[in-house]
Amino acid sequence: MGMKGRHDIIKVGDHVLLYLDHRRTFLVKAEPGRVLHTHKGVVDVGGLVGRRFGEAVESSLGVRFYALKPLMRDYVMKMRRRTQIIYPKDVGLIAVLTGVGPGWRVVEAGTGSGALTAFLAYLVRPDGRVYSYEVREDLLEVAERNLEMAGVLDYVELKLGDVTEGIDEKDVDAVILDMATPWLVVEHAYESLRDSGSFLSFSPTIDQVKKTVKALRRTGFTDIQTYECLLRRIIVEEGRTRPETLMIGHTGYITSARKAVHAGG
Amino acid sequence: MGMKGRHDIIKVGDHVLLYLDHRRTFLVKAEPGRVLHTHKGVVDVGGLVGRRFGEAVESSLGVRFYALKPLMRDYVMKMRRRTQIIYPKDVGLIAVLTGVGPGWRVVEAGTGSGALTAFLAYLVRPDGRVYSYEVREDLLEVAERNLEMAGVLDYVELKLGDVTEGIDEKDVDAVILDMATPWLVVEHAYESLRDSGSFLSFSPTIDQVKKTVKALRRTGFTDIQTYECLLRRIIVEEGRTRPETLMIGHTGYITSARKAVHAGG
Amino acid sequence: MGMKGRHDIIKVGDHVLLYLDHRRTFLVKAEPGRVLHTHKGVVDVGGLVGRRFGEAVESSLGVRFYALKPLMRDYVMKMRRRTQIIYPKDVGLIAVLTGVGPGWRVVEAGTGSGALTAFLAYLVRPDGRVYSYEVREDLLEVAERNLEMAGVLDYVELKLGDVTEGIDEKDVDAVILDMATPWLVVEHAYESLRDSGSFLSFSPTIDQVKKTVKALRRTGFTDIQTYECLLRRIIVEEGRTRPETLMIGHTGYITSARKAVHAGG
Amino acid sequence: MGMKGRHDIIKVGDHVLLYLDHRRTFLVKAEPGRVLHTHKGVVDVGGLVGRRFGEAVESSLGVRFYALKPLMRDYVMKMRRRTQIIYPKDVGLIAVLTGVGPGWRVVEAGTGSGALTAFLAYLVRPDGRVYSYEVREDLLEVAERNLEMAGVLDYVELKLGDVTEGIDEKDVDAVILDMATPWLVVEHAYESLRDSGSFLSFSPTIDQVKKTVKALRRTGFTDIQTYECLLRRIIVEEGRTRPETLMIGHTGYITSARKAVHAGG
Repeated sequence: MGMKGRHDIIKVGDHVLLYLDHRRTFLVKAEPGRVLHTHKGVVDVGGLVGRRFGEAVESSLGVRFYALKPLMRDYVMKMRRRTQIIYPKDVGLIAVLTGVGPGWRVVEAGTGSGALTAFLAYLVRPDGRVYSYEVREDLLEVAERNLEMAGVLDYVELKLGDVTEGIDEKDVDAVILDMATPWLVVEHAYESLRDSGSFLSFSPTIDQVKKTVKALRRTGFTDIQTYECLLRRIIVEEGRTRPETLMIGHTGYITSARKAVHAGG
Repeated sequence: MGMKGRHDIIKVGDHVLLYLDHRRTFLVKAEPGRVLHTHKGVVDVGGLVGRRFGEAVESSLGVRFYALKPLMRDYVMKMRRRTQIIYPKDVGLIAVLTGVGPGWRVVEAGTGSGALTAFLAYLVRPDGRVYSYEVREDLLEVAERNLEMAGVLDYVELKLGDVTEGIDEKDVDAVILDMATPWLVVEHAYESLRDSGSFLSFSPTIDQVKKTVKALRRTGFTDIQTYECLLRRIIVEEGRTRPETLMIGHTGYITSARKAVHAGG
Repeated sequence: MGMKGRHDIIKVGDHVLLYLDHRRTFLVKAEPGRVLHTHKGVVDVGGLVGRRFGEAVESSLGVRFYALKPLMRDYVMKMRRRTQIIYPKDVGLIAVLTGVGPGWRVVEAGTGSGALTAFLAYLVRPDGRVYSYEVREDLLEVAERNLEMAGVLDYVELKLGDVTEGIDEKDVDAVILDMATPWLVVEHAYESLRDSGSFLSFSPTIDQVKKTVKALRRTGFTDIQTYECLLRRIIVEEGRTRPETLMIGHTGYITSARKAVHAGG
Repeated sequence: MGMKGRHDIIKVGDHVLLYLDHRRTFLVKAEPGRVLHTHKGVVDVGGLVGRRFGEAVESSLGVRFYALKPLMRDYVMKMRRRTQIIYPKDVGLIAVLTGVGPGWRVVEAGTGSGALTAFLAYLVRPDGRVYSYEVREDLLEVAERNLEMAGVLDYVELKLGDVTEGIDEKDVDAVILDMATPWLVVEHAYESLRDSGSFLSFSPTIDQVKKTVKALRRTGFTDIQTYECLLRRIIVEEGRTRPETLMIGHTGYITSARKAVHAGG
């Protein structure tokens, strides 16, 4: 009855997340002859080919690593980064607040290292598209490699350009900003969005939030909301269950809004 | 050049979210002759037909409502509910942690009022599928209506059944549980998941988390993590910017894990 | 050996906190003939005289109340209030940050209903003193009654006056502000404080904090820090241990500083 | 009119907190000839004698340090420590919940490095007393030096002993525990407390909390509450105001209770 056929077999060229513990993971490409050197010994990466995803492999020192199939969050955490990247907790909230999903056309700026871009592209597949703007050409190159690694480059249009000067696309479902001066983009976002479309901005400082909210009110957006999201990891072990001592206390504020329109407009 | 064509026009039968402020919104169906009675006057719902999404309409008392195109989060907040429903902040995190996205096959239990089901269905479109189990027939009926309203019923298979006794589907990408005794489902989830597939459980109490984590460790899952997510709304107004006084201090803990497999298994 | 002598006996005129559960407590004065009417029946308050603090008494409906000896936090929670009062969690932090303790001389403004005043007075006993300013005479009267009830009026000097126009006292150990425009008091606080003395301001909005911090920097304070403190109640019960669903998400920001001095000044 | 007389002059033997910024402070003793070597140059500590608290002094590299008069929180942060010490945020809450103040008699265990002991001693002065138990003699020695440095040793009775085996003192106002097995002390605490007296336990894990709450309920305590307190530092600077990125996400849970008594007992 062919149960073997059900297994997810690692093929040449597949990415594998070697998982030691939640702080130590390694993203590798399964190719003959390749090895990974770690503090816990050498792992035979080439030898992963033909094994199943999820299998444990032992390093030369006998330490066990799990060969997981990477999720988008794994790709993102392993991206080459030249900029502060967005945290998964914030991406989830961004998706739910804006409504980004399959088929959506989304404008994003700035691309940065492509972390948020990758998540958005993953969610709009297969028919949607992310138009991602970045003013720095070097970052676009980094992002391109990262998006290719993450397998979502086909769903992204990387654009060298400054959204404070304008947005080419019209009738997009959402405009999502992770940049220093979002308030300078609010009017362009309004022009670019479809009726009732979603605006979202991610900003580390409250000063940015205040300027952005002010611009949103002036421009004709409604349902303007600002949130912050705090994530705590809980250590769950018999007799010593407790939240982790150190946590990320702040990444950024998330401001969402929807485009109101004026009759005869 | 036909800019009119770009507008999102409200048609008969369309759902509209009438937005007064962030605490007062109304989900209505645009049908001739229908009106909405509110404390702020009567709104001519039938008259919305032919207007653009995002337009402001005035009630009989001259109060302005915005006619927004509902997002999935709007549908969910307006669902008929017989059970505590999941919060959007948790849904976002659940999606990112599990990797649920277009094309995924997901088992979910229990269906409850269908809130989490609706979000998951929205994300797996158009080729994925959510198999949602519920032991109470009356809830399945509520969920069915809710999912139909939210426009995602086609992507869901509602199943009357108890996942503590087994899961029919094999090779699913994720098993997501929002039920009282998730630890009783861990072995069935393992059997149901594809290699390296995602397990996730949402539980209000730490006692549930401890039992679930224990079962996950025993059953052969890896990358077992528990989180809680706190969302704070920030009031942004000149001279009185501050977090909101009352907040939801706790909804539930989120435990995620991935299926490890054993060679020769 | 007279163990009876050890007991804390309720005397005529003593305040008693009748404790039903953490949401339902009643502060009463033990006097002959007095009764308390509650939804859980009538409690014979007069009958408390001669009994021990900590004893359970039954209402006419057979419901048990504990006759606790009030702590300062109990008095504060039961104060007649005309203003938003400070939360215990914030008072604790204020005390630790400023160093307020026995013997300190503290300037406070505004008095409001006297909640913070009462805590400060409690801590500076027996030799310290709180100089509490308030511009509204009606509030001073409320505060006076509240402080008398809490048993700390002797340690407080209630002053009708506006600290934005000046502070009479010199060489005080701390200036503590809970008022709308703390930045207008920063220079007067500087003049009033002893060398290296403690400044503290409690403000609900970030806009107030920014103005206050700016004034502190300009005026010659050092070690300027701003904090917020979040308190969560945890429900601890077998099988359903979890943080409480609703929490106070924000009360105010706490800004502390210390007076730097300039040689020859 | 003798304003000079008002100044707080640094005398030989005084402790001084040299403040560079909120992460870099140095607790020194002003004695002739003493110097402090820092990465920002050498500070002439001996030269502080005769200057005013709060004055700025320059290091050999021209970097400015403020010579602050230490608060109890400064002493505590600079204590020699062999154990995890309690955070100021938690101390404030402990004081408010228990009611510890001038004149109180408090039993504390374990002493550890003496951080909590020092705060409690500071608050019960001049007539109260802290009875602090510790099973490790080496820690008692560390604590003794720390308490002497902090100037509160006279208000503390350090006791080599195990409170799980009993508490010598009777009729104390509060029993405060920061130790691994607080539940084993609950009955002894009950015996030691005066009627309606305050129990408090600080524990890092939820497992400890559950056992302690269970013991409290069994033993006859009432008003049993558990809290956690989260402190966030806010960076306040024009154009970049925001919470600090990293925060302490968890120190411990605080469980408070009050002694109920039974008539005829």
